[in-house]
Amino acid sequence: MNGAESLVQTMLASGVDTVFANPGTSEMHFCAALDQYPEMNCVLCLFEGGTSAGADCYFRMKRDVAGTLLHLAPGFGNAYANLHNARKAGSGLVNIVGDHATHHLAYESPLKGDIQGVSQSISHWYRWSPDAGSVAGDGAAAIRAARSLNGQIATLALPANTAWEAARTPAGRGDPTGAEQPPALHRPETRAIEAAAQRLTLPGAALMIGGAALFGGLRQLAGQICAATGARLLIDTLIPRASRGAGTATAAHLPYPVEPKLEALVNTRSITLLGTQRPVTFFAYPGKPSLPEPANCEIAELCRPEMDIAFALDALAQATNATKAQPRVYPLDLPALPSGTLTLESAGAALAHLLPEGAIVCNEAITSGFRFAPPLTQARPHEMLGGTGGAIGWSLPGAVGAATACPDRKVVVLTGDGSAMYTIQSLWTMAREGLDVTVIVFANRGYQILRDELQNVGVQSYGANARAMFDVEGPSLDFVALAKGHGVPASRAETLEQYTSALQAALASDGPALIELVCD
Amino acid sequence: MNGAESLVQTMLASGVDTVFANPGTSEMHFCAALDQYPEMNCVLCLFEGGTSAGADCYFRMKRDVAGTLLHLAPGFGNAYANLHNARKAGSGLVNIVGDHATHHLAYESPLKGDIQGVSQSISHWYRWSPDAGSVAGDGAAAIRAARSLNGQIATLALPANTAWEAARTPAGRGDPTGAEQPPALHRPETRAIEAAAQRLTLPGAALMIGGAALFGGLRQLAGQICAATGARLLIDTLIPRASRGAGTATAAHLPYPVEPKLEALVNTRSITLLGTQRPVTFFAYPGKPSLPEPANCEIAELCRPEMDIAFALDALAQATNATKAQPRVYPLDLPALPSGTLTLESAGAALAHLLPEGAIVCNEAITSGFRFAPPLTQARPHEMLGGTGGAIGWSLPGAVGAATACPDRKVVVLTGDGSAMYTIQSLWTMAREGLDVTVIVFANRGYQILRDELQNVGVQSYGANARAMFDVEGPSLDFVALAKGHGVPASRAETLEQYTSALQAALASDGPALIELVCD
Repeated sequence: MNGAESLVQTMLASGVDTVFANPGTSEMHFCAALDQYPEMNCVLCLFEGGTSAGADCYFRMKRDVAGTLLHLAPGFGNAYANLHNARKAGSGLVNIVGDHATHHLAYESPLKGDIQGVSQSISHWYRWSPDAGSVAGDGAAAIRAARSLNGQIATLALPANTAWEAARTPAGRGDPTGAEQPPALHRPETRAIEAAAQRLTLPGAALMIGGAALFGGLRQLAGQICAATGARLLIDTLIPRASRGAGTATAAHLPYPVEPKLEALVNTRSITLLGTQRPVTFFAYPGKPSLPEPANCEIAELCRPEMDIAFALDALAQATNATKAQPRVYPLDLPALPSGTLTLESAGAALAHLLPEGAIVCNEAITSGFRFAPPLTQARPHEMLGGTGGAIGWSLPGAVGAATACPDRKVVVLTGDGSAMYTIQSLWTMAREGLDVTVIVFANRGYQILRDELQNVGVQSYGANARAMFDVEGPSLDFVALAKGHGVPASRAETLEQYTSALQAALASDGPALIELVCD
Repeated sequence: MNGAESLVQTMLASGVDTVFANPGTSEMHFCAALDQYPEMNCVLCLFEGGTSAGADCYFRMKRDVAGTLLHLAPGFGNAYANLHNARKAGSGLVNIVGDHATHHLAYESPLKGDIQGVSQSISHWYRWSPDAGSVAGDGAAAIRAARSLNGQIATLALPANTAWEAARTPAGRGDPTGAEQPPALHRPETRAIEAAAQRLTLPGAALMIGGAALFGGLRQLAGQICAATGARLLIDTLIPRASRGAGTATAAHLPYPVEPKLEALVNTRSITLLGTQRPVTFFAYPGKPSLPEPANCEIAELCRPEMDIAFALDALAQATNATKAQPRVYPLDLPALPSGTLTLESAGAALAHLLPEGAIVCNEAITSGFRFAPPLTQARPHEMLGGTGGAIGWSLPGAVGAATACPDRKVVVLTGDGSAMYTIQSLWTMAREGLDVTVIVFANRGYQILRDELQNVGVQSYGANARAMFDVEGPSLDFVALAKGHGVPASRAETLEQYTSALQAALASDGPALIELVCD
């Protein structure tokens, strides 16, 4: 058994059976080992930014880690932006980075780079395996690190010779028959729970939730706590994953722009944080505050994102006598299938009308979403994955990860044209894997967010040179051709009929499809 | 005057008038300042990997620095792989990275990241401007660093408030009326020149050149030195820029695969390095050496890449009485316009027949190039830009940079399909800027280099799972549709007639065009 085989065996024994890969020469033995272990699912991405977003959204849905397979420091660099998003999402994943063989590192070969430096600037955990005998143990340790503290970025660099040289079985610290489990999560102290229970009953109290509290049973429990205490349930602007639609406990979602965000918290006297950090504006703007809450508002950190969120909610529900309370939930209120003019509002109503139960919506429609998405809150129950770190280009490859994790669920991508162009190669992976993904591209021909932000930072007027940095036209992108080039069927919708018909067909199919939505 | 304006003014006063940009909110004031300074040429890239490759190849052709405009740590990450290539090419460039406003960095906002960590893992020089008054001086220092030692990666992080707050004029150390010039380059000592002159006359001597010695007058001077001494002129496998075609001093180009590389040096007794590093194999392979020269071969470092290459060549030419010698040069030997079957060889002959004088060929046809490119050595005089750091995806955006630097020259891109997909968005920038670029995509439907490398690392057979990591088919990519989607006219060539006709049309046009070359 060589080191590569010992790694694959360790991963499988530890329950890690999915890798989003963009291999190079230093990862050849890993690829060869795949033939012996067909239960390892290796998803080829044509660019490493796809691997990290794939593993990120895989974790968000599966609540367990996948791997990425990357090629030296430049490959890691390509994965970096979506690792940033994964880190901010609290996702756990294992980056496997091939390095040069140990004896080759003495020389200035072309691909030699600072793997440790670039890795440590984004990873929670980093290790470089010195020999083949260490690979299994280091792989198990990486998986353990990735599973720790609710999810971390773990990066394991493997010199090429550690893959091809002989490994012992079991090797190193990690017994390949079962990875070490992560340490138990820290829990809030009883007195902190009791203080929170008391605080939530006071006027102007809010419970702000994040992480696993945003969806499923824990979201409902948070809703029960708020029903029992009278506190307001708050959700931050950017969220990794949240329940949405009929039956979901209602919550106030903090808006992105500064003024509405301040407005949303104007009468708030306390914010109890459970699984999330204190709210902050996305950017700083001249003369505007970074913190959106009023000056007299108490910020109480009950349970940090890396602590035991389920325990904290359970304990808080006990302390507030909330276990029998009825949460306020969104009703099912499907809009009629709209007719008339194609607008972002009518397009959003059509999706709300048609969206199947259990769908996963990857929402990267940064500006268009404000007008498009509201009716989805009362659509059939579904889940939404959001941007977390502000690095654009996560939703197309993220959909690959979500669809790989949940092959029986419909995945819908909402993306602006600017964001889509970052990782457009992901369309090919959708086609190759036959993933059930419907992509809606909002073709507003530019970085609309920047058109808006320019005024937010105090620039009152701008001319042709500045505009050329925000407009993506001259020529316009043709997303129907781009999708076809990647093997994904597509159509352009310039009328509501075209859009509705394309959307119905896409949702009815079980493979990928793209709709270019052209409207203001 | 705000900090952003003081930066633009400093850049222009220092002779830096081109920026490859992918701005975000933190760079808005820089964009707004562009309207006041229309002489600043800002080229919009739809992905940051395009900005770094653009600035890299701009430097290779212009021999002076351009800027990139990046958005926080994730934007820098996206630029990373092509910064690696730029660093290995010895290119100088200035990364301008927007950061959050200083007062906002106290909070965990979504885009907050480790700009310093990721920058320092690839940059030669890094600075973070603390206030608007420092921006001009820091900008001048960054430009100076980028111009130092024949070209370096300089990264200047600018908190958003340093752009919008008031700046002094002139500000900081750098007077915006003229950037500090870089320090003088180190020169080899006289006795080292004399020793080299002696060594080159001995049996088995080779002069291995890099950097500025690879093209133009210095390349010819190197050829004269070899003609006068009898030494062999050697060029490493990967080169940033080299003269090629008729009239170019002949040189032995070290091949990529290990065995031919060893073979090329088998009788070599000394290698005098001038502007380059010692040769090393690209990767390590089981049981094969990392160093390609024979054990008894002397490696003599005469002039490191960051030293004064022009001085060293001049001094060496004097010491070897070479200034009147006639270098051996490649003759003009244009192949006939081929007919018959479309093969890589016939396709290469057609390009050699048609390539106009002064063309710039960005050669990322990693495996196809071995068979396609040889006739170009006797084509009309032109220059070739090559891969330098082994990170794929540099040639399309690199062509944007080369064409921006040299608008009067024809640029030709040779790229594999796997490489093209990394930064395919660059096609849009070619279309928007109307750049004179002809792109030839070798559609071998996969990572051919990996198919080859698998055997090099000792994997003798592999099955369907491994193959799925190397093959880019099921579905095949349609580069004609992809080009159309980006606004670039394109055609597919499956016969020699189709190819020749498309190539003639593309070379005759003065805008971008793409040819998908389908052949084995």
